[in-house]
Amino acid sequence: MMKKSLTLLAFLSLLLNGFSQNTDSVFIKQIFDNALTNRVAYQNLEVLTKIAPGRLVGSEESIVALKFFEKYFKELGVDTVYLQEFKTHSWACDSSSVSILKTKSPEVPLRCDALGTSVSTPESGIIAEVIEVQGLEDLETLGTEKIAGKIVFFNRPMKDTFINTFAAYGDAVDQRAHGPAEAAKYGATGAIVRSVTTSLDDFPHTGSSRFPDSRIPALAISTLAANQLSQELKENPKTKVRIFVQARDLPEITTYNLVAEIRGKVKPEEAIVVGGHIDSWFNSPGAHDDGAGCVMSCDVLRIFKELNIQNNRTIRAVLFMDEEMFQSGGKAYADFVGQSGKRPYLALEVDEGAFTPEGFSVDAPDSIVNKLHSFKPLLDPYGIKYIRKGGGGVDIYPLKKSGVPLVAYVTDPQRYFDMHHSGNDTFDKINYRELNMGTGCVTTLIYLIDKYGVE
Amino acid sequence: MMKKSLTLLAFLSLLLNGFSQNTDSVFIKQIFDNALTNRVAYQNLEVLTKIAPGRLVGSEESIVALKFFEKYFKELGVDTVYLQEFKTHSWACDSSSVSILKTKSPEVPLRCDALGTSVSTPESGIIAEVIEVQGLEDLETLGTEKIAGKIVFFNRPMKDTFINTFAAYGDAVDQRAHGPAEAAKYGATGAIVRSVTTSLDDFPHTGSSRFPDSRIPALAISTLAANQLSQELKENPKTKVRIFVQARDLPEITTYNLVAEIRGKVKPEEAIVVGGHIDSWFNSPGAHDDGAGCVMSCDVLRIFKELNIQNNRTIRAVLFMDEEMFQSGGKAYADFVGQSGKRPYLALEVDEGAFTPEGFSVDAPDSIVNKLHSFKPLLDPYGIKYIRKGGGGVDIYPLKKSGVPLVAYVTDPQRYFDMHHSGNDTFDKINYRELNMGTGCVTTLIYLIDKYGVE
Repeated sequence: MMKKSLTLLAFLSLLLNGFSQNTDSVFIKQIFDNALTNRVAYQNLEVLTKIAPGRLVGSEESIVALKFFEKYFKELGVDTVYLQEFKTHSWACDSSSVSILKTKSPEVPLRCDALGTSVSTPESGIIAEVIEVQGLEDLETLGTEKIAGKIVFFNRPMKDTFINTFAAYGDAVDQRAHGPAEAAKYGATGAIVRSVTTSLDDFPHTGSSRFPDSRIPALAISTLAANQLSQELKENPKTKVRIFVQARDLPEITTYNLVAEIRGKVKPEEAIVVGGHIDSWFNSPGAHDDGAGCVMSCDVLRIFKELNIQNNRTIRAVLFMDEEMFQSGGKAYADFVGQSGKRPYLALEVDEGAFTPEGFSVDAPDSIVNKLHSFKPLLDPYGIKYIRKGGGGVDIYPLKKSGVPLVAYVTDPQRYFDMHHSGNDTFDKINYRELNMGTGCVTTLIYLIDKYGVE
Repeated sequence: MMKKSLTLLAFLSLLLNGFSQNTDSVFIKQIFDNALTNRVAYQNLEVLTKIAPGRLVGSEESIVALKFFEKYFKELGVDTVYLQEFKTHSWACDSSSVSILKTKSPEVPLRCDALGTSVSTPESGIIAEVIEVQGLEDLETLGTEKIAGKIVFFNRPMKDTFINTFAAYGDAVDQRAHGPAEAAKYGATGAIVRSVTTSLDDFPHTGSSRFPDSRIPALAISTLAANQLSQELKENPKTKVRIFVQARDLPEITTYNLVAEIRGKVKPEEAIVVGGHIDSWFNSPGAHDDGAGCVMSCDVLRIFKELNIQNNRTIRAVLFMDEEMFQSGGKAYADFVGQSGKRPYLALEVDEGAFTPEGFSVDAPDSIVNKLHSFKPLLDPYGIKYIRKGGGGVDIYPLKKSGVPLVAYVTDPQRYFDMHHSGNDTFDKINYRELNMGTGCVTTLIYLIDKYGVE
């Protein structure tokens, strides 16, 4: 009898030790069980893309989106929900077109969208010859003589040979971001840019084009349209196109970031921020970019509530306005917390779409990177390949100057630029499991940061 | 001057050392550059799914598919292309339906497909009450008294909480594979199975149902239809459904595996097999399952040709017939090489869809697993997370008994079962980059196996 009791005792002790070692992994399994079996984030994203597509800062849709998430957080019953107001300028596009002029047949329309912040053309558009280039460096070679009065067509494709598509994007996007302004310096009357996408299809992909000085009309055309125009120019270098843009500057608008919190039970003044951006390009439902980041950030708070996690620190979701054009929401938020003297404890941005989780990148001193990396074994079973030094995110970047550690959630990048900034970024491209796996990973990291700190 | 020459010499020597260490990684980059910039595999898959959807063994479409790839290999100019003939039995489904009977309104149709190898019902179908169960173990509890004369409805969902969907599939698929035969033992007149899928939608997912003894009509219904039927049964447990299947056994057919080779320059008798299965379920274009595996296997040979790789061993693509129903192609191929006394050097199966590469699993003695694992650093830059002990593949499994090392290419599993065995497995679900990344990884591993061997 004694022997049996001892054996039992030894067994129980082993069991308890095991339990204490495994507390975190057992609880993390609960987080994932909740994330993977719950359709709330997925359904929120379906509704968002339906009621508020094209939610560029300054648009009615952007306000619809804010109100949708404000209502969601209030119904969830978190401790604080508010709109953080700020003023910015904005821009809106009403319509645009590009067509190839033919001598003996009707104009051939090409699928296009204006680039932000293109100026308008006259009502009848601009008709001009086209000069095709492979990049900004070609402009200097050609010079004003060959460029003035023409429409510059930037047609260097995004390279397929990069393994990480973000690197391929970085390699090609200068044409869209700086090409039109550079072309303007040489007297171009307009600019057309091949869509910066991994996909060969008929969706135009827009994005920011920066004009430090004078602006010209600038548009993106689909990759198929770019191939078509290039072929046309090979056959007839004198080919003319008509470009048309109707767009408006909005000099001063009032808009908002949305903030929602579950107060910390021990250190409420230390807020862990998790967020995405609520705006999307005017041509896009913004399902992956960044509706996904918004609904995942919302879902972090839902899981904390449902699992009744007694968080030490405040868990704060921030849905940032205007990541796409002027990054005014991120700046306004940093100013806001700067003025109140309450810098967040840490900020994590979710803005790489709802693809299979890959890792986390950390913009912080090595000691913090190492501390976060020490959590990795707990995330290994869920496919997290790394937690390592790297960039944070566009919206949270302004917090860096006050020393806030920044973290970015990183996903499998293969499909992201197929949809990015285009009408192809629709809800049906969202995979339920990939979205929820991401929510599980982000919630888990925030749970561990709250429990153990990052120092 | 002397000093300069010495410095130059040292530099050159450093350079050459560097080159020799990096020869493999430089060449592998060439393999990926080719794989990632070439649209051949992608376009082949588009054509295949268009001209030969529903290419179940015994169907005309299966022969169309064979001829398509035979022509492709001949045009590619490989050394050998032939159809390896064998005889098997088969099964074909002509039509099927399931509907809920209503007293005061028309029958409510449910989206369904027959399971292979369901028998036919009478022309007017079978009308019976339904008994819903959560698994095979419920049958014994209920017993013949409650089951006889009824239609058993297996409705246990595939669990969302598994991280690997293949594990979730394994956990749920017994209902489809063995449920109908078990239900027959208790006198059921038919069986309906909830589709084994991660997706909540209206696509029925079919698959094999094994009947060691007597067969009954058996069908899969979509997950939405399963929820609808379950709800109906809650409201009215006496609800009757009508099931209808028109299907035929094909007692003896002649069919083929397709074999294509690039002869080895040093050890031509040692063949490295790479393959997928050419058949798909009758209800499915089979884009991921396993058109992708076929076009990737084809592309391995294309890349070997285009890069003019002087392979030591024979590189042999085998497109296996009939993985889905009876695995007769895999068995016939093992018999064929067994009779000729020429067992392959190694066999690699590609049958997990065209998703982002994850790793390779190896069914072989540890020494071979370790040797293959030693190649992993060369594949790290391309996202391969592991090369480790694990299962091979269904088609190559019959080669195991003659000691052939087996390898399976493993992909990110989150989306696979959304499409698997359904009409949803269409070409538009294929991502160009994910497919080509897979081709790069498979070609690289085969290149290294050929160059260094596995002993």
